[in-house]
Amino acid sequence: MQQLSYFLAFAGTSFAGVLVIGWLLSIIKSVKSDSAVATKIAGAIRESAMTFIREEYSIILLVVALVAALLTYFASPLAAAAFVAGSFTSLATGFVGMHAATLANLSTTIQAKNHGERAAFLMALFGGGVMGFAVASTGLFSIALLTYLFLDQPAFAIIITCFGVGASLVAFFARIGGGIFTKSADVGADLVGKLEAGIPEDDPRNPAVIADNVGDCVGDTAGMGADIYESYIGTLISSMILALNFAPFSLKHVTLPLVISAIGLIGSIVGLVSNTLFKLEPATLLRNANYVAMAVLIAGSYAYLTWAHLPMTYFVAIILGCVGGVIIGLITEYYTGSTPIKKLANISRSGAATNIIYGLSIGMESTVLPVILLALLVLGAFSYGGGSFGVSLAAVAMLATVGITMTVDSFGAIADNAGGIAEMSKFDSKVRKTTDKLDALGNTTAAMGKGFAIGSALLAALALFSAYAQEAGIDSLNILDPLILAGMFIGATIPFLVSALTMRSVGDAALLMVMEVRRQFKEIPGLLAGTAEPDYKRCVAISTRAALREMILPAILTVAAPITVRYVLGIYALGGLLVGATLVGVLLALMMANGGGAWDNAKKYIEAGNFGGKGSDAHHAAVIGDTVGDPFKDTSGPALNILIKLMSVIALLLVLL
Amino acid sequence: MQQLSYFLAFAGTSFAGVLVIGWLLSIIKSVKSDSAVATKIAGAIRESAMTFIREEYSIILLVVALVAALLTYFASPLAAAAFVAGSFTSLATGFVGMHAATLANLSTTIQAKNHGERAAFLMALFGGGVMGFAVASTGLFSIALLTYLFLDQPAFAIIITCFGVGASLVAFFARIGGGIFTKSADVGADLVGKLEAGIPEDDPRNPAVIADNVGDCVGDTAGMGADIYESYIGTLISSMILALNFAPFSLKHVTLPLVISAIGLIGSIVGLVSNTLFKLEPATLLRNANYVAMAVLIAGSYAYLTWAHLPMTYFVAIILGCVGGVIIGLITEYYTGSTPIKKLANISRSGAATNIIYGLSIGMESTVLPVILLALLVLGAFSYGGGSFGVSLAAVAMLATVGITMTVDSFGAIADNAGGIAEMSKFDSKVRKTTDKLDALGNTTAAMGKGFAIGSALLAALALFSAYAQEAGIDSLNILDPLILAGMFIGATIPFLVSALTMRSVGDAALLMVMEVRRQFKEIPGLLAGTAEPDYKRCVAISTRAALREMILPAILTVAAPITVRYVLGIYALGGLLVGATLVGVLLALMMANGGGAWDNAKKYIEAGNFGGKGSDAHHAAVIGDTVGDPFKDTSGPALNILIKLMSVIALLLVLL
Repeated sequence: MQQLSYFLAFAGTSFAGVLVIGWLLSIIKSVKSDSAVATKIAGAIRESAMTFIREEYSIILLVVALVAALLTYFASPLAAAAFVAGSFTSLATGFVGMHAATLANLSTTIQAKNHGERAAFLMALFGGGVMGFAVASTGLFSIALLTYLFLDQPAFAIIITCFGVGASLVAFFARIGGGIFTKSADVGADLVGKLEAGIPEDDPRNPAVIADNVGDCVGDTAGMGADIYESYIGTLISSMILALNFAPFSLKHVTLPLVISAIGLIGSIVGLVSNTLFKLEPATLLRNANYVAMAVLIAGSYAYLTWAHLPMTYFVAIILGCVGGVIIGLITEYYTGSTPIKKLANISRSGAATNIIYGLSIGMESTVLPVILLALLVLGAFSYGGGSFGVSLAAVAMLATVGITMTVDSFGAIADNAGGIAEMSKFDSKVRKTTDKLDALGNTTAAMGKGFAIGSALLAALALFSAYAQEAGIDSLNILDPLILAGMFIGATIPFLVSALTMRSVGDAALLMVMEVRRQFKEIPGLLAGTAEPDYKRCVAISTRAALREMILPAILTVAAPITVRYVLGIYALGGLLVGATLVGVLLALMMANGGGAWDNAKKYIEAGNFGGKGSDAHHAAVIGDTVGDPFKDTSGPALNILIKLMSVIALLLVLL
Repeated sequence: MQQLSYFLAFAGTSFAGVLVIGWLLSIIKSVKSDSAVATKIAGAIRESAMTFIREEYSIILLVVALVAALLTYFASPLAAAAFVAGSFTSLATGFVGMHAATLANLSTTIQAKNHGERAAFLMALFGGGVMGFAVASTGLFSIALLTYLFLDQPAFAIIITCFGVGASLVAFFARIGGGIFTKSADVGADLVGKLEAGIPEDDPRNPAVIADNVGDCVGDTAGMGADIYESYIGTLISSMILALNFAPFSLKHVTLPLVISAIGLIGSIVGLVSNTLFKLEPATLLRNANYVAMAVLIAGSYAYLTWAHLPMTYFVAIILGCVGGVIIGLITEYYTGSTPIKKLANISRSGAATNIIYGLSIGMESTVLPVILLALLVLGAFSYGGGSFGVSLAAVAMLATVGITMTVDSFGAIADNAGGIAEMSKFDSKVRKTTDKLDALGNTTAAMGKGFAIGSALLAALALFSAYAQEAGIDSLNILDPLILAGMFIGATIPFLVSALTMRSVGDAALLMVMEVRRQFKEIPGLLAGTAEPDYKRCVAISTRAALREMILPAILTVAAPITVRYVLGIYALGGLLVGATLVGVLLALMMANGGGAWDNAKKYIEAGNFGGKGSDAHHAAVIGDTVGDPFKDTSGPALNILIKLMSVIALLLVLL
């Protein structure tokens, strides 16, 4: 009975999120295009994105079917079904979000042309909002439903873990596939277009330009959505599994993570809706929406803990999670938007090599404060917030307002796309300026979002690690034991290996793209003069093939490593492996996200007219740095986020079986 | 009595090493220069190097005096004296090696001009040999003497640890100072000379060319010598401290590390001398010398263990150490000299950005096999070689033949320098071709040497870590304890921070150098035409000031971190810190050493006429990659090697006090 009322409350909250999605989509669709060219270009982007997603999903579904068969055999049909459900909800969330993005980009362009900045901003924001609320509603509803149906069964932990493995595996494929697609297109387009032919970004004469815009949709939106969905699920299930072992059994403890997430979803809705009522500057609106959501989360959690007579120590954990997320965002903002990027722009005057050296150095330095902060946060949440369960609650709280944080995070990609459509449609340069302004704002919020994604991934991985240790019956993992030390060293190499593979994939695919674009410039007469059309489809096909081919090996490695170590070296070494991979994965992910962001923004800073502006030696150097940063921040870095959670959740499943 | 005979045996072996040094120096000095220009240039390099070393040493001596005062107060005057002795022996070893290098470079040039490849090769080899045998003889004699004098005193562990701290601290300064000097000069010279003015490497018109050649001496020779000396000392003392706690006390166990080192030194002498008797190809001679030394070490150790009735498990550890060093060298050779660099050269055709992406990816991938191998080696040495003491013996064995490995490692820098002198003296191009051939061979052996240096550093750090845990009375370091986890995370950030700082130092100093070289090209009339001389001294002064200024902060951080964590979070968190720093430090060091080597060799591969050869787009891209790789392989990477040992030995001292 009590379980039913909980479920109804969670389902109701999720449904409110779905209503918001419908509202946002209806607004986006209400904007009618008055430009046939723009409609055609947006259609080409949408069509190519859908083609890619279809091909990507069919490969992913094959893998899902294979794993489901294995789970049926080694676990149970129910576990396999939960795994399939986790996979499908992730795929569906990514699909809905990308669909909205490919509609919103056109609406944003049209609004920028006809009604100016604010109207355009709202379209991009609402487009991002669909993804944000899809993640939150689907995640909350799915876990609430599984809890309602199976909480009383002994296999409950296995069922939700299998759901999590499904979400994780899909996220890994979507992130790597999308990341390789978007960056091979982007790097290829920039290398020949900007550096060799000297034509501007998004110029319709560039054969890779459609592929580049498709990449924004499949990488920055669908990939990002799957990533955050997986973090959201990962924290929920690990927190609930830790709560399951409380003696005596306490329903209030098990459902607490869901309650916090539900309050966060309500907060996100309140934050978004309330702030769009006022005519605020875009940057102010984004900040306020976030803070309102967080205030609702904090106040609501306090009220619930009081009402439910739960220990107030949990409130400490929740506060730590919220505040930690904000501080990591601010540190990221500093490293990708302040003094460091001015220095990076300055040093670009002595060439590409020093730009690279300096950018790497910014990326490396930027790892220090967030990691120390996270270490202290974990220490604080453990000591004053309720032990391992407290640490997992901090992670849940950090991700609870995912509805609004993802909205803020993903609107930039839509604005970027809108700029591309405006450029290719040869709209007045004012339109492009409007979208560029939004794109620049989006770059900063996206960098903050990445910092937040990495921080929450670390907490999620640690929560899963705690759950793993608990379920494996491990009380102590002694680093002085060489077996555990060996596990740590092996684990630590995996993020390096996956980074190496994914960066190389981007490099290889970019080389193919460069050759193809050069060929088209040479062989299609009148292309550079603008009298002939390039063959966009061949470029899209190159990125598609590269992405689908190259996403397999990293996934196999990431899944095979914990399984192999489990059966060759045992559960203690596997514990060491998880810690080593998490530690190194987080550091590399931060370095790559922030280094990439710094290169990107240093280039933009020079383009704004500093140190010689566009076309200067400094600019040339900065473009090379930006190109190196692309796979850093959008392929390899994000892949590591998922890697650490995927390995942890697989380890958890291995000991549950 | 027994102690005295041990001491006499060690002192005798050390003296044999000193005789070899005298023999090598007399051969180097017997070559008389018949070119006044070459003599003048070599003199200018030697003078600038000595000026730098004087200024660097006076700063280091200030720090040594300060630390000695603190040790007198917190420990004892004897401990302070041991610390000073450790510092001075390190400084002296570096000085002797560098002195020999600045003589051997001229002799190599003259022999290349008058007597061809083999004669030139022997000069470079003998120049490197002075450093190799100085390290081995000084290290063995110092620790043997301290053992003879103080073994019976309770403070023995503190005394040898203080000696190790002295060697470590000096090594850190020498490595970072030398690394920043050499790479700011190199990067600055390349950026303007090769990329902008289009003049060849080592062209006398380039104002930074003397600074560049000075850098090879102070960085690649003096810095490298201090680095390996420190590893040698670190493994000896940690192994002996572990042996001290055997109950009942066993002199045979305590002296075993010294015996292995003495046998290794004899093996090195036999390897070098025997192979120079035959007229072998340079590459064959280097390989054979190494293998002969190792064969003597293995056979001698077996004989000693049998004679002394020590457990044969130790023989397993010794074999693992020897074989591990060789395999790591071979893996390094693959990544910096085979298929990967051809692919890297190929992808350079699509520009600098993809060259950088691909080179980073090679560096990252190259960490995987060595680290897994080292993990298994540790596991093997622990399980079958005698526990922690076995692991430390593997480290001692890996470093025992340091006399020959350092010789092989450092002859390349001398050949490089000889090429510079030939170029600036405008000798026939045949002379330069001869030195280039030796330089290329030296690049491969240096890369293998770096892999070996990192592998031995990891084992040394782990041995020190075991000694730390033993002396701190720590039986278990449980990663599930958030305090230890927090220590690990904090420790893991330090290698990133030190890499960031040192890379930035190189970038900043290179920018100053670029500005100065550009200024001289503009303001000195007739410079590019070759009718006027550049102002070399100002360039040397820029590198000197940058190196001395920038080496302070990383050193303070590295020393302060373990002390702070010890007193704020305690000895368990400090244990976590050491593991985190070691794990991440080794991975980054491998990535940087191998990535840097791959970029360097890919550039050389293109220069050999592939993918368009010199002056092609691919070459231009490869030069940028090589420039990025310079601080990787010669500044930041090597600094991390020392960092992990320095932090461990400081931690050991903290618990001993």
